[in-house]
Amino acid sequence: MGNQNDKASKSELSHISESGDAEMVDVSGKQVTSRKATASGKVVLPRAVFDEITTNDLVSKKGSIVQTAVIAGIQAAKKTSELIPLCHQLPISKIDIDIKPVEPELHIRCTVKCSAQTGVEMEALTGVSTAALTIYDMCKAMSHDIRITDIQLEHKSGGKTDFSR
Amino acid sequence: MGNQNDKASKSELSHISESGDAEMVDVSGKQVTSRKATASGKVVLPRAVFDEITTNDLVSKKGSIVQTAVIAGIQAAKKTSELIPLCHQLPISKIDIDIKPVEPELHIRCTVKCSAQTGVEMEALTGVSTAALTIYDMCKAMSHDIRITDIQLEHKSGGKTDFSR
Amino acid sequence: MGNQNDKASKSELSHISESGDAEMVDVSGKQVTSRKATASGKVVLPRAVFDEITTNDLVSKKGSIVQTAVIAGIQAAKKTSELIPLCHQLPISKIDIDIKPVEPELHIRCTVKCSAQTGVEMEALTGVSTAALTIYDMCKAMSHDIRITDIQLEHKSGGKTDFSR
Amino acid sequence: MGNQNDKASKSELSHISESGDAEMVDVSGKQVTSRKATASGKVVLPRAVFDEITTNDLVSKKGSIVQTAVIAGIQAAKKTSELIPLCHQLPISKIDIDIKPVEPELHIRCTVKCSAQTGVEMEALTGVSTAALTIYDMCKAMSHDIRITDIQLEHKSGGKTDFSR
Amino acid sequence: MGNQNDKASKSELSHISESGDAEMVDVSGKQVTSRKATASGKVVLPRAVFDEITTNDLVSKKGSIVQTAVIAGIQAAKKTSELIPLCHQLPISKIDIDIKPVEPELHIRCTVKCSAQTGVEMEALTGVSTAALTIYDMCKAMSHDIRITDIQLEHKSGGKTDFSR
Amino acid sequence: MGNQNDKASKSELSHISESGDAEMVDVSGKQVTSRKATASGKVVLPRAVFDEITTNDLVSKKGSIVQTAVIAGIQAAKKTSELIPLCHQLPISKIDIDIKPVEPELHIRCTVKCSAQTGVEMEALTGVSTAALTIYDMCKAMSHDIRITDIQLEHKSGGKTDFSR
Repeated sequence: MGNQNDKASKSELSHISESGDAEMVDVSGKQVTSRKATASGKVVLPRAVFDEITTNDLVSKKGSIVQTAVIAGIQAAKKTSELIPLCHQLPISKIDIDIKPVEPELHIRCTVKCSAQTGVEMEALTGVSTAALTIYDMCKAMSHDIRITDIQLEHKSGGKTDFSR
Repeated sequence: MGNQNDKASKSELSHISESGDAEMVDVSGKQVTSRKATASGKVVLPRAVFDEITTNDLVSKKGSIVQTAVIAGIQAAKKTSELIPLCHQLPISKIDIDIKPVEPELHIRCTVKCSAQTGVEMEALTGVSTAALTIYDMCKAMSHDIRITDIQLEHKSGGKTDFSR
Repeated sequence: MGNQNDKASKSELSHISESGDAEMVDVSGKQVTSRKATASGKVVLPRAVFDEITTNDLVSKKGSIVQTAVIAGIQAAKKTSELIPLCHQLPISKIDIDIKPVEPELHIRCTVKCSAQTGVEMEALTGVSTAALTIYDMCKAMSHDIRITDIQLEHKSGGKTDFSR
Repeated sequence: MGNQNDKASKSELSHISESGDAEMVDVSGKQVTSRKATASGKVVLPRAVFDEITTNDLVSKKGSIVQTAVIAGIQAAKKTSELIPLCHQLPISKIDIDIKPVEPELHIRCTVKCSAQTGVEMEALTGVSTAALTIYDMCKAMSHDIRITDIQLEHKSGGKTDFSR
Repeated sequence: MGNQNDKASKSELSHISESGDAEMVDVSGKQVTSRKATASGKVVLPRAVFDEITTNDLVSKKGSIVQTAVIAGIQAAKKTSELIPLCHQLPISKIDIDIKPVEPELHIRCTVKCSAQTGVEMEALTGVSTAALTIYDMCKAMSHDIRITDIQLEHKSGGKTDFSR
Repeated sequence: MGNQNDKASKSELSHISESGDAEMVDVSGKQVTSRKATASGKVVLPRAVFDEITTNDLVSKKGSIVQTAVIAGIQAAKKTSELIPLCHQLPISKIDIDIKPVEPELHIRCTVKCSAQTGVEMEALTGVSTAALTIYDMCKAMSHDIRITDIQLEHKSGGKTDFSR
């Protein structure tokens, strides 16, 4: 993780009770604020696969791999609270997923917005993750040497503390 | 993964029709065989977070982070066809998720078994992915310097061609 | 579509970005207002089927075809954002589905209410649609000459512009 | 569909018990056979909307309206048993959705294949229905004078009796 | 159930690994057999509520409370593997739910059939449970002195050992 | 239900229309208030099973049966509106599930909090119910003499009338 600096603080693990068991954070006392989060991730493809899908225009904005992955990512971001046990259901106001080829990788960014008592980081990360899995699925007939990597939060605002990488 | 060798072949992209649009593979003519797939992935944590969760016994087999992530991963693997648009619904016979700390990372492995006309790679990868997101969710109160990485297929058997990394 | 006048305006397609790709509308800047929408649709049945279900009291208010279709329609309206990729999840406050026989058809109306930043037209249309499919399912053992038709919006209020057919 | 001939027979309504209540058909004694069903439907658009989306290449194979609707229809067909209360969960082997502009309409066809004890008509009809709703959703910013119509079964084979319109 | 005899044997807890963590049973080596299970349960109502719903014909076969609860129970039984983390997805061939008033209670029975490598007990129990919750929901405006009780397995056949209470 | 006094009033059944059919309550005119509800329930185990799981530390806070059941209950409480047809989707702010052994039973309590126009009783009851089913599932390999019982509301506040058993 090279030169990324460690922002970990002594703050408690909010999803773990004092006795060590998993628990949902109680957000009932929090303010409803405008939240926004952006996550990113990469799908690393073998060169032959990258060339094939680039040549055949499958990963341009209108390419079917990109369009399918974008829809899958949006749908999954809306399902975050179904997938991640301790997440709250949030009334998401916008999900934007962008995928672009950067030889020999596909780079994914997902931004989620919401007015809520808690943030939308997990929604953005779930959107990236599922878009990446969908790309994998659509390329896997050519090779299984595909790697989904570097899924991380880029920015987050609207909560107690903002974050920017 | 530096020295990964490129196994990409000339085989067509089965999820893309000749005219370039996304399509579900027709598996109706395939044999039902015993399928098995194992995927892996890593959650890279800041040292302080890793120390905190290790010290507090949250990532042992009985730790609440591990147990919650395992359940989430199993549940998500069963939902793969809901998340990945072109995946088939498969009658999974076994999902096994294993998470272990390897300083300062958590390593996840998910093995899925099934008797079906198509493989369970995407199920194994979805299991890893969602377990990783769940770990992220449970640690994020301490830091957002968390990275989910190296999600990849390890083995797969039972289909036309086996795969082993 | 006979004499219905074309209300199409030059307004842009909000679900399509400038570069032509699908995107979710950003409703974060919109006012939360009281929204209401009513949609309607018809299931056209062969005479013999219509007579059979009418005679056997299956399509009265207490008939099992009507009751099952109403429940299915309500449940589906709540799932609209899961079914229609670019729809937002909305906190629906009321769903009402009414089905009545008009020889040899069943007429369905679904009204949905909500306080939200965007309207509930798709919810009302999804409610009608799924109620119609459920009626089809329950009648199909007698005939497949069934047609679901004329699913359309009847009224909508609470947004920028009201609509009434 | 004016001259549709009524194929309704005296066959009982299999989803209705003798006492008139809704029930799931017991398929446990049936043979597993290769099933296939095709359904169709139309979205009737105001001329201005049709022109707009045609001109902007949104309803070609690679157009974002078509691609989004195809994915939505495939996903919904897989969810049929969740939406239609008395439907069985079926291991679908192929879903194919085709959408083409026929001025001023969009014509949708969905074919579903499966090896099962019961047919896939409802899956095909649900695929068409949801693709149609998705098209509606993506066009509705321009006009609400949109009508989803003529959703019907075209062919079905593999069960006790084949059907072809 | 006072005199229930304890049939517990030394058999291991199949969902718990040797090291004590939760795991899905591997059914891949098991035979596909015809499985059937029946579960039962009761909703105990205050007398005034029982009288009200009986008098108004809401709990006869065609009563809306019964019909709604039956549909809800069937739908939930199909979702068992989504609700109970270690359950397998099973291709259910029949779900039957029966509800009848036995003053001042409503008695629920749910029978599920399937051809599979594992049994459908959890599906039958989930069907009963959700039907009971639905009844509760529809009566709760009159009183919250409602109790859901005695949810248990009645019969099960098709597996290694049959069970009959 | 012994000495619990019957609080049933003449108030109408809000989920039943005047003509006797099921309907969703219209909450659009209600105030958004802070809601809270606690439900409880029991799983009665054969002595041998109770001893086995107690001895093996499976039902302590960190035991895998308890942890799995807690996660399942939380996930199900979030899905209440999907399971109970006439329930509204609510933006839950906290779900807490507590399970403790009381020889030879496991006692479950689920508390749910929300700011909404309607209460969270059904969410709390669904959480208890699903946690109980999950416990059943994990113990059933030892015996089917398990009974889920006494699922009831304990407290509820924030609505028109509070309730406390």
